[in-house]
Amino acid sequence: MTLGRLGRPRPWHLLLLLALAAPAVLWGAEGGEAGLPDLLLVVAAMLAAAKLFGEVAERLGAPAVLGELAAGVVLGPSLLDLIPSGTMPGAEIIRFLSELGVILLLFEVGLETDLKALFRVGSAAALVALVGVVLPFALGYTYWAGVPHPMMGDGADLGTVAIFIGATLTATSVGITARVLTDLGKMETTEGRIILGAAVLDDIIGLVILSVVSGLAAGGELSLGGISATFGIAVGFLVATVVGGGLLIPRIADRVIRMRVRGVVVGMSLAFALALAAFASMAGSALIIGAFAAGLILRGTPLHHAVDAEVRPVAALLAPIFFVKVGAAADFTLLDPRAPGAGGLLLVAGVLTLLALAGKVAAGWAVPWLRFRRLAVGIGMVPRGEVGLIFADVGRRAGLLSEGTFNAVLLMVMLTTFLAPPVLKLAFGRPPEPT
Amino acid sequence: MTLGRLGRPRPWHLLLLLALAAPAVLWGAEGGEAGLPDLLLVVAAMLAAAKLFGEVAERLGAPAVLGELAAGVVLGPSLLDLIPSGTMPGAEIIRFLSELGVILLLFEVGLETDLKALFRVGSAAALVALVGVVLPFALGYTYWAGVPHPMMGDGADLGTVAIFIGATLTATSVGITARVLTDLGKMETTEGRIILGAAVLDDIIGLVILSVVSGLAAGGELSLGGISATFGIAVGFLVATVVGGGLLIPRIADRVIRMRVRGVVVGMSLAFALALAAFASMAGSALIIGAFAAGLILRGTPLHHAVDAEVRPVAALLAPIFFVKVGAAADFTLLDPRAPGAGGLLLVAGVLTLLALAGKVAAGWAVPWLRFRRLAVGIGMVPRGEVGLIFADVGRRAGLLSEGTFNAVLLMVMLTTFLAPPVLKLAFGRPPEPT
Repeated sequence: MTLGRLGRPRPWHLLLLLALAAPAVLWGAEGGEAGLPDLLLVVAAMLAAAKLFGEVAERLGAPAVLGELAAGVVLGPSLLDLIPSGTMPGAEIIRFLSELGVILLLFEVGLETDLKALFRVGSAAALVALVGVVLPFALGYTYWAGVPHPMMGDGADLGTVAIFIGATLTATSVGITARVLTDLGKMETTEGRIILGAAVLDDIIGLVILSVVSGLAAGGELSLGGISATFGIAVGFLVATVVGGGLLIPRIADRVIRMRVRGVVVGMSLAFALALAAFASMAGSALIIGAFAAGLILRGTPLHHAVDAEVRPVAALLAPIFFVKVGAAADFTLLDPRAPGAGGLLLVAGVLTLLALAGKVAAGWAVPWLRFRRLAVGIGMVPRGEVGLIFADVGRRAGLLSEGTFNAVLLMVMLTTFLAPPVLKLAFGRPPEPT
Repeated sequence: MTLGRLGRPRPWHLLLLLALAAPAVLWGAEGGEAGLPDLLLVVAAMLAAAKLFGEVAERLGAPAVLGELAAGVVLGPSLLDLIPSGTMPGAEIIRFLSELGVILLLFEVGLETDLKALFRVGSAAALVALVGVVLPFALGYTYWAGVPHPMMGDGADLGTVAIFIGATLTATSVGITARVLTDLGKMETTEGRIILGAAVLDDIIGLVILSVVSGLAAGGELSLGGISATFGIAVGFLVATVVGGGLLIPRIADRVIRMRVRGVVVGMSLAFALALAAFASMAGSALIIGAFAAGLILRGTPLHHAVDAEVRPVAALLAPIFFVKVGAAADFTLLDPRAPGAGGLLLVAGVLTLLALAGKVAAGWAVPWLRFRRLAVGIGMVPRGEVGLIFADVGRRAGLLSEGTFNAVLLMVMLTTFLAPPVLKLAFGRPPEPT
């Protein structure tokens, strides 16, 4: 958990990265059109940098996802400027790979989501999740739309942006939380069960909120009717596919498991996830709702463990491409104190981080009649992680979040994700708060 | 090995495929621009069809790759016309995925290639390989450039096309051959060792030939000097990277194996394969020479088994995308007896198949002083498989092979691949030919 764990300096970390990145830089500098070899080098550099920085992050006691974001900052316009974006050649392909990464990420979350265990934790987790969504959303929305701040006029319509800001504050990263609880050996405690149950519910609520805000981002109307419709579609799609798929898919899975051709499990299950993601999008919801539903459905089949084992290496390749790409969208030159608005950006990022902390920590007190470590539960809900990043990325690409706002949100996501694990460790060391 | 193995009809095979394909057809029919959801459906349909048809092929006793080609024929312009090509939206992304598939395929072949065992089989395998390359090449070149046939004037310069035709006849599919030998339990026989050793050498020679013909395809000069230069670059790149990488990479692998971040082995090794593929291409050789070298190098490191296990599911996803895409390039409407030139196409395909058989079978008699089943060794070298397809695809995309010629070559590859396994089984039942 300390720098000491890194041991003596390992120059090969940097050497390997440079060896991979340098030719791409040189090639790019020649001004030639980016061809297939250049694009292969970019993907290679993204993969290698994600794993190197992820490893460094883990050795520092932080989640790997922070390292992947940092890798993106290094490869992005702030430093090496290697990753094609916008209308540059190859940008479309990198975007597609990173969309596949998000789909695989949510497919895996679905595979890991135990709906039955969730129903057992029941009301406590539900209440914590509800407060942990409503409170941060209300705080974020009120701050953005109601309190004067340096970025008030940036980006699109104030109300729409405020909804987006509120939405990014609602997320809880079930992946990071589960990882930290496992590392602390607290998965089987009351607090652990409540945190995980609430985090899973948060994921589902967050996906539905994402459908709504994606609808807004695509130019949907900011009316109660429009929002309700999007909400209805997302919930309806989830319920319909999970119930319908739960009846149909296990029979198909029974056949697939008896097929012997190489890679049949990973091929079929990924085809299923991609198809459901596409259907969700065509039905007017978000891609990742479909990917999540596909994971939930396959979890209940005899294929579950085979899928889990074979999808893992694929997700371990593609999900980092997404995080590196998000990191590359950050422009840390905006934080340079001499840059115009740098102070304002830091102020806004700081306030958002405080609101993000306050809203989730307060959720620990949502169930006053049960005795448990409320601070631990609250802190456990703090890391925004992947889901917060997906929100921020959708808002940025839709042009809803200005560059400054996106960077402020990104800082908030990184800070909450970075702070939570060590604080959670401390909170578990304290006795439960009195009821 | 018979149709009976398929058991009772399984309507779910077709149902699942249609369920995946139908929305894409409908969507395409709307005439809207292909967006991300459409592309996801196309990829899903390619994956599902590849696995279903691959399974059917295996149950019929044929290699899975034939099923994947058939899946391409069904999804391609001959029937459903689902796969974007040329300048259609999404075509660039499908092409990139299929290039990744080829790279992964050759990376795996490299991982499975035991150079030391190869040196032990020694002269017998080398002679069989040499005759099995020179003879089919000479037969193919002479037929195309010297004997009048219905497609004589098609495509580019006669001499260049004849070299390409000769080159496609030289390939031996080490993957298919190894699979069939394993199925027959003949891997450890003299014949098995010679076949495999020669097939591996064939792969290496084939890759070098591919570099040469790729150079021709890219407009390189058809001079002895130009061909020697390309040959020199390919051999030089292979030797330099395998020797240099063999010194450097095991040290890096020692570090990587101690890293703990999720997916570090698959991420790092794939980054390495992509980077070497790009370097090979930039050095003036073929992408797959680099991918193959990366596999050879990693085989000699402590990472070997971890890489093998984690790369397998990724290759099982991406390689079929390549084969489906090659199958989709086939236009079986050309075989319709009413189509102009259908008879000529079948005639040419038939002659090419006979030459392909004759050249490889004769190679079994290349080592007259050793006693073994010559027919079995010859037949074992017959399946062209993946490598022949890569050749044909390069020629088609470079505009060297006319549509008719490409389809004739494709038929030859499919016929040799389809015929070899059952005939090999028969040949192993016969006593060795007298010395």
